[in-house]
Amino acid sequence: MAIPTEFSLAEAIAILTRTPAALDAVLRGLPDVWVLRNEGRTKDGNDTWSAFDIVGHLIVGERTDWMPRARIIVENGEARPFDPFDRFAQAKESQGKSLQQLLDEFARLRSENLASLQSMNLQPEDWTRRGRHPELGVVTLSQLLATWAVHDLTHVHQLSRVMAHRYRDAVGPWSAYLGVLNCAGHSAP
Amino acid sequence: MAIPTEFSLAEAIAILTRTPAALDAVLRGLPDVWVLRNEGRTKDGNDTWSAFDIVGHLIVGERTDWMPRARIIVENGEARPFDPFDRFAQAKESQGKSLQQLLDEFARLRSENLASLQSMNLQPEDWTRRGRHPELGVVTLSQLLATWAVHDLTHVHQLSRVMAHRYRDAVGPWSAYLGVLNCAGHSAP
Repeated sequence: MAIPTEFSLAEAIAILTRTPAALDAVLRGLPDVWVLRNEGRTKDGNDTWSAFDIVGHLIVGERTDWMPRARIIVENGEARPFDPFDRFAQAKESQGKSLQQLLDEFARLRSENLASLQSMNLQPEDWTRRGRHPELGVVTLSQLLATWAVHDLTHVHQLSRVMAHRYRDAVGPWSAYLGVLNCAGHSAP
Repeated sequence: MAIPTEFSLAEAIAILTRTPAALDAVLRGLPDVWVLRNEGRTKDGNDTWSAFDIVGHLIVGERTDWMPRARIIVENGEARPFDPFDRFAQAKESQGKSLQQLLDEFARLRSENLASLQSMNLQPEDWTRRGRHPELGVVTLSQLLATWAVHDLTHVHQLSRVMAHRYRDAVGPWSAYLGVLNCAGHSAP
């Protein structure tokens, strides 16, 4: 069976290791207008996500998504489907916390999870191990790990868009040149 | 004359100050596969930009775009149009440099430019001062400064997309959930 396109654990870890510091550099100490504003309501009346919500969502992923699913694949294979992921859990989980607390928590959990991942001592022959996603069906271990890294990037992508939204009018005619202001998001969220 | 929507110099500076450290956290020491790959060729046969190209472009902006244009507005108003910006200058300017050198250079130039900006001691009544963009026509000082900040965000948006592109196949069926993989860019670039 072919190894999926160019997946490399070391390369994925290079991304995953850097995300907490990158979010910290962008967000810590930033005025609340940049941190708490969102892009308004969706068509079905839900609030879109602020920077604060995005960090909370990444924390929930560290707790309930990536490493728990990697362990299910290794221990149970397709026999046990993953637990569904709660995309709205951060509303409750982040309540009463400051952004600084969330940034610290995300950095700590990511660091612990990467230590656990490395202790699993996975090898290229493990990449094709299969698991069962509750909606997507059969997926492989390398797809899960690549998705973990790209999920970080998709939320950096979203974060820059959410922040830019605040100045969509302030830039005047330059909006035509600023791609981020013409991004409406591409999936939820 | 109304002050443009909610522009605040302190808020713009809060973004502008953080971008060099954010790019540093994402990119320094990252394997070359993430730094040098781009999204392939455009329809007209030009290479799209890699992370390396993006940092080079931000450097050219620090040298020739933002502060020079702010000074033209304050000193000449609409009488002297801005010099056109060269969107491809980084190909030559970055030649022979390492990513580490570019990150250091961007951080130094940004820091110098923000010091110059603060020494101009601009006040809210200056926001409506007018300049002339060679393509967009009349623009204001606050629009220029808001655009400087959103320009940072648009290139963070682009950077996350360029990097994610590498794993567009490796994520398998999860691509449906990963907005960044469904972003084709919204303007050049």
